[in-house]
Amino acid sequence: MSVIDLNSDLGEGYGAWAMGDDAAMLALVTSANVACGFHAGDPAGILRTLQAAAERGVAVGAHVSYPDRVGFGRRDMDVASADLVADVVYQIGALQALARAAGTRVSYVKPHGALYNRIAADARQGRDVIAGIQAADPSLTLMALAGSPLVDLARGQGLAVVAEAFADRAYTPAGALVSRREPGAVLHDPGRVAERMLRLAREGVLEAIDGTTVRVEAQSICVHGDSPGAVEIARALRRALEEGGVALRAFAPASDAPPAAPRA
Amino acid sequence: MSVIDLNSDLGEGYGAWAMGDDAAMLALVTSANVACGFHAGDPAGILRTLQAAAERGVAVGAHVSYPDRVGFGRRDMDVASADLVADVVYQIGALQALARAAGTRVSYVKPHGALYNRIAADARQGRDVIAGIQAADPSLTLMALAGSPLVDLARGQGLAVVAEAFADRAYTPAGALVSRREPGAVLHDPGRVAERMLRLAREGVLEAIDGTTVRVEAQSICVHGDSPGAVEIARALRRALEEGGVALRAFAPASDAPPAAPRA
Amino acid sequence: MSVIDLNSDLGEGYGAWAMGDDAAMLALVTSANVACGFHAGDPAGILRTLQAAAERGVAVGAHVSYPDRVGFGRRDMDVASADLVADVVYQIGALQALARAAGTRVSYVKPHGALYNRIAADARQGRDVIAGIQAADPSLTLMALAGSPLVDLARGQGLAVVAEAFADRAYTPAGALVSRREPGAVLHDPGRVAERMLRLAREGVLEAIDGTTVRVEAQSICVHGDSPGAVEIARALRRALEEGGVALRAFAPASDAPPAAPRA
Amino acid sequence: MSVIDLNSDLGEGYGAWAMGDDAAMLALVTSANVACGFHAGDPAGILRTLQAAAERGVAVGAHVSYPDRVGFGRRDMDVASADLVADVVYQIGALQALARAAGTRVSYVKPHGALYNRIAADARQGRDVIAGIQAADPSLTLMALAGSPLVDLARGQGLAVVAEAFADRAYTPAGALVSRREPGAVLHDPGRVAERMLRLAREGVLEAIDGTTVRVEAQSICVHGDSPGAVEIARALRRALEEGGVALRAFAPASDAPPAAPRA
Repeated sequence: MSVIDLNSDLGEGYGAWAMGDDAAMLALVTSANVACGFHAGDPAGILRTLQAAAERGVAVGAHVSYPDRVGFGRRDMDVASADLVADVVYQIGALQALARAAGTRVSYVKPHGALYNRIAADARQGRDVIAGIQAADPSLTLMALAGSPLVDLARGQGLAVVAEAFADRAYTPAGALVSRREPGAVLHDPGRVAERMLRLAREGVLEAIDGTTVRVEAQSICVHGDSPGAVEIARALRRALEEGGVALRAFAPASDAPPAAPRA
Repeated sequence: MSVIDLNSDLGEGYGAWAMGDDAAMLALVTSANVACGFHAGDPAGILRTLQAAAERGVAVGAHVSYPDRVGFGRRDMDVASADLVADVVYQIGALQALARAAGTRVSYVKPHGALYNRIAADARQGRDVIAGIQAADPSLTLMALAGSPLVDLARGQGLAVVAEAFADRAYTPAGALVSRREPGAVLHDPGRVAERMLRLAREGVLEAIDGTTVRVEAQSICVHGDSPGAVEIARALRRALEEGGVALRAFAPASDAPPAAPRA
Repeated sequence: MSVIDLNSDLGEGYGAWAMGDDAAMLALVTSANVACGFHAGDPAGILRTLQAAAERGVAVGAHVSYPDRVGFGRRDMDVASADLVADVVYQIGALQALARAAGTRVSYVKPHGALYNRIAADARQGRDVIAGIQAADPSLTLMALAGSPLVDLARGQGLAVVAEAFADRAYTPAGALVSRREPGAVLHDPGRVAERMLRLAREGVLEAIDGTTVRVEAQSICVHGDSPGAVEIARALRRALEEGGVALRAFAPASDAPPAAPRA
Repeated sequence: MSVIDLNSDLGEGYGAWAMGDDAAMLALVTSANVACGFHAGDPAGILRTLQAAAERGVAVGAHVSYPDRVGFGRRDMDVASADLVADVVYQIGALQALARAAGTRVSYVKPHGALYNRIAADARQGRDVIAGIQAADPSLTLMALAGSPLVDLARGQGLAVVAEAFADRAYTPAGALVSRREPGAVLHDPGRVAERMLRLAREGVLEAIDGTTVRVEAQSICVHGDSPGAVEIARALRRALEEGGVALRAFAPASDAPPAAPRA
């Protein structure tokens, strides 16, 4: 029987500002990439998201980012290695303590936005992120883009890696994401998304944009939850996977820590 | 033989901006209150401070603050409990991970600036800080103002507390700090500071501003290092304590963790 | 014929985060209190709000705040006079330039949130805000809480003042706002809100929480737009005023500057 | 008789943190590039710098930056056009109001750090900065790197441009700056710096790194003041220029506005 993880970005509000429907997504996914305060997330809001993830038994990843709140971490930045390593350590540690306070723990690290895209291929910044993870906690898993050079780079450094595919994105015949600037790069039909990902989960392949079949080694599927349409796609995908006999399971245990909720 | 701890605020630069003489102070103190990013400290700068503290065998405390960088955490803020608890957890966790990366660990928590002053007497915010420490790591010690209601409040909640005296401040006959707005509140003469603190360390008393003798239960003495004059006072104080037969020793072990320096 | 201004807080998104329904409110109000970046608002988002206000002919006020984005400017802060004066000048200037870029101009200043509440009665911070406005542009009008000491303080310093009432708030027999902590402090029924404000606009009085009639000298009415219910109240109020023969008109001209839209 | 302007970066403290020796530099330069809060500078600190510049009769430029305080604006960022235009407008406006409060005015705009380097050759971001200046105040002058494509781009858009040379930098035979990564890129000898800049001011040429003579069209010379050595270089340069018969004069009048100091 096939097994796959479903992950989504959560905890992306900030102070008085909300984003996405965390409650809806926590009922659908098995792993939550939780913002750490650099692109989104204030401590109290992050803690609420972690408490909800703990109640649902959803595994938690640190969604580390460049320090760019006004740009939501979506702008490429030339960050020096000493800064990037320490920024990663800082964010992981902050989330770990909040996770303990919520009775759960951080199992993995998923870089966010521009940092995610950059390190998929930029080995210098990729090594910095790996070094940051290992300095903070070498038992953490890195979630990386399936097929990207980062997967091998991190494994070569001794880090556990989970590769992920994107539910609503088209792929090239070489197994890379089609750039968002190209037509057809983003899929909007819930049925088609569900069918593609079911095939990916069962056979390890999907249909590339040119009609050929391409192998994509992914242990997790990323779904979005920042619009009603996105939640609907996630819901259709989960149903299709379950009905298609694919077990939905986090690659990491949600928690082994005793709960320690703050008392104030 | 008497034993006392010397603590100072360190790691208070931010990005391109420096503050204080961390290297000089790390040669003098036994405990370092390290900024956590809310009033001062960027991750890479904090990490450098922690590495230097680890090399010197100086114990590390999390110098948690209100979120007010432009005000250096010196402005009183009405922070709701849910925010204050989570802000404390976040800062402790961030510093813990950076400490691991530097081969040391966080042993205690010392609130900074306006938060320090506020919770000395404000029980609501005091309970929030205590709850945040316990949710992050109940084995941490709270460093609090000697003689303040916070000392008993925290002990009553089961938290270990170290009380501290201020080397360069005058005291009322009741054992409280003389307000900075009063004449004579701050002492500038290194010799006088050293003599007072030597007596405090050996006898547990010092001379109040009215000439009476007052008992101050302190296990640590706070010294400043943000000016050449402040460093000189700290140096004179350390020498006087050593020559006076007082052992200088951190109340908490500096580290029991294996070093794990980042590789980038 | 009676004349009154309707004002609302706008431009309160931040980067990727939205807040309120600016488009809906700009169709209802005559004056827009536009965030200046300290509690909400990034430059590009502020500019979009100003362009929309200019198109609608809605007057613009600088909604200046304490520097507290994560707390949305709602937390009381002890800001020193030199800082508060300069913070006010900075925010006004930033909004003035963005207003020029949008083809409009800043006509008035309305302090936001905790600063608004504080200076209603705190003369020291009130004088700082007044000094900041006068240093930036003495031709600006201050929008202040009707009946508060600030109204007289500012007029005494030579500043033009517009007093405002709150559409959805109960009043004491002395003409002050009933604290939000008291039952009945906030009104939720659109019809009742509309009827009260129509009477205020026509007769200068409204019914206090104890049933007595109280005089409230207000040239503007503040309405909220941060929820569907709030927009509905604003809509009902506008309709009632128009049908009741009250002219809705900004107290300040929306613009006399030629448009100068950025070309990028 | 030759005339030249000397400019330097000032107002680069932030809250409790100081940087550089503003007082020393204001006695040497004729134009001050004043931080606007995005890479450095808090409102009260900026205002103090502007008051000192006004007293000295030093002209003021807006030293606009990417929004990156922790990186001091030195990190390249991919900022979208709508954001960059509005960021420039916001910063100019904030500084203009503070300048009015200090009794002076903003005469020019000099992009800072990574933004400066990027737009020297990146036409998209260059056009955004130009659009931002024109939207805020088309009478402002742009200070740009002598010999860079930006000089012609901005003049082509109708903006007044002042080209600047760097006192302590080596030049290629083509008139470009030698990269800091190359040996010999930065000059440290005050005498040599002074002699080179005297020749530049009088003859419009200097000796390139390969010994050839290169023409550099500059109306201003940039000097640093962030270290004792830098201040010494600036002092030697000023003396050499004065003794060499070169008049030191700002390209823009320091002020024509009546003083309006805040009263708080």
